[in-house]
Amino acid sequence: MKEKILKALRNSGKNYLSSAELCETFGVSRQAIWKNIALLKKNGYAIEACANKGYRLTASPDKLYAPDILSRLSEDCICREIKSFETVDSTNTKAKQLAELGAEEGTLIVAEEQTAGKGRRGRKWKTEKGSGIWMTLLLRPDMHPSKVSGITLLTALAVVQGIYEVCGATAQIKWPNDVVIAKKKICGILTEMSSEENYIHYVVSGIGINVNHTSFPEELQNASSIFLETGKKVDRCELTAHILQIFSSFYTRYVEEQSLSSFVDAYNSVLANKDQEVRVYYGLAEETDEEKAEIGIARGINQEGALLVEMENGIREIISGEVSVRGLYGYI
Amino acid sequence: MKEKILKALRNSGKNYLSSAELCETFGVSRQAIWKNIALLKKNGYAIEACANKGYRLTASPDKLYAPDILSRLSEDCICREIKSFETVDSTNTKAKQLAELGAEEGTLIVAEEQTAGKGRRGRKWKTEKGSGIWMTLLLRPDMHPSKVSGITLLTALAVVQGIYEVCGATAQIKWPNDVVIAKKKICGILTEMSSEENYIHYVVSGIGINVNHTSFPEELQNASSIFLETGKKVDRCELTAHILQIFSSFYTRYVEEQSLSSFVDAYNSVLANKDQEVRVYYGLAEETDEEKAEIGIARGINQEGALLVEMENGIREIISGEVSVRGLYGYI
Repeated sequence: MKEKILKALRNSGKNYLSSAELCETFGVSRQAIWKNIALLKKNGYAIEACANKGYRLTASPDKLYAPDILSRLSEDCICREIKSFETVDSTNTKAKQLAELGAEEGTLIVAEEQTAGKGRRGRKWKTEKGSGIWMTLLLRPDMHPSKVSGITLLTALAVVQGIYEVCGATAQIKWPNDVVIAKKKICGILTEMSSEENYIHYVVSGIGINVNHTSFPEELQNASSIFLETGKKVDRCELTAHILQIFSSFYTRYVEEQSLSSFVDAYNSVLANKDQEVRVYYGLAEETDEEKAEIGIARGINQEGALLVEMENGIREIISGEVSVRGLYGYI
Repeated sequence: MKEKILKALRNSGKNYLSSAELCETFGVSRQAIWKNIALLKKNGYAIEACANKGYRLTASPDKLYAPDILSRLSEDCICREIKSFETVDSTNTKAKQLAELGAEEGTLIVAEEQTAGKGRRGRKWKTEKGSGIWMTLLLRPDMHPSKVSGITLLTALAVVQGIYEVCGATAQIKWPNDVVIAKKKICGILTEMSSEENYIHYVVSGIGINVNHTSFPEELQNASSIFLETGKKVDRCELTAHILQIFSSFYTRYVEEQSLSSFVDAYNSVLANKDQEVRVYYGLAEETDEEKAEIGIARGINQEGALLVEMENGIREIISGEVSVRGLYGYI
């Protein structure tokens, strides 16, 4: 009910919405409306109540508040349940715990802060309270485990499109799944799954976005935030909802088609380093050993999500996780 | 210490082992020996103590007792820690919980009984208290997730070889991973993993063996036990240890070579239906729709673990999980 009222208030803008209207629209009592309005106020929403006119929303808090995000999602969005936390160890860990207990596909975990945020391969991921979007979506796709890497690529693409829609900023993807603005990393994605060899139990798709951070420690010279790159503070609930909505449509289509072919062009159009020289580092080591790297020209992904790199002896299909790819200068 | 004393007593057979000898061999006090002997007795081991002669083992209980299994493993076996339970929900679930808490590779869970044993794709797996071996081994292999299906095949092969060594019975494998004796299923294997797209966090390899069951309910007409097929009761600790020891060497080699090629011949030599006609059922449905099935001749696995089936239009590589394969008559 809170998300419905919030949506109605937001849609009516500066106009007042009468209690009677709200009661009629949602088929509930005046008391129920009043109770939910009180709860919203308690959560930081400034709602003006005026005798004979009704209610209007004058300000929203800067919080990842579940009903706020839900109020912005369409009925057909796969995300139908959101659990928001002030602090969690890691949203991925939380989502996996819920998955083991039988939580449904589309359950989202969001948190203001992670105390043990995770990067790929067990690396740590620093988070700052209240500035970012730390979220993990639980999925139960009916597909072969080998196709899960496609979900990661589509998550990155949804983040790029969401940032464009909400912030007007042009982000790019550093293959396979880092999102960058002006060559600085502003988002990391960590997809994990639980499976039998040929059967997926569940996938958790974790997204960490640096949104309103005003600074980064010196050692994170390649990191930035949307605010730092655009100069504008972002409504985190709005951005979260847009990304979820876009991802939802991508995901539904991917599960149906079991192929990335519908997404290859869109992905390649935002691929950093496309048609530029890149270094390909083999093995799982850190990207330090330049002598072992091979140089080629990144041509884009194929419908399996592999990066095609043109080398002296022909095109090579590079599979995520086995190599890392960088531009010749700097982080991307 | 318990496993060391047990090993020494077993090795000395009918001869007594003096307390002094045990103290010297293991570099501990007489009191420590006495304490551990008392613990073994408490766990059902009949240990005769004779003044001036020492100790000897006269009978062992029919229990999956961790020190007993450990006492039979070599120093280089990957299994170095065993946690035994009277009752667990599922040994795989228990192993996954421990894995999430950081348990090391080679940790084994064994239980006398599972209250919610798991089959593939969430099917239930019935277990009877004290008759079988229900165990799960935690692995953390450094390999691509796509290679995990090989671990399942090697687990089946280790079970077949272990049964042969300990029971003298010839078991076969119904591809990919059911172990059968005389066409009846006596063992199921369920491998699960937690991974990123290209990086394994951990694998749990669950093995359920019907060992000393004296009967099965009518609805399980395809199931049997080693006892029912051979007429001999089996020492479950001995069988467990043999399987672990064999699997350990297979696994170490597989991780090193990252290929099944060293195992293809051994696997194919125990493959049920080899060079015989089989029905291949596509899709994930139950094996009922005979019209949609295709008939071919099973020729054995290749080094990726796919089953090669010779059909009218050539050899087809069949990947586990996408199809099921049966002989023309009956369960296998």
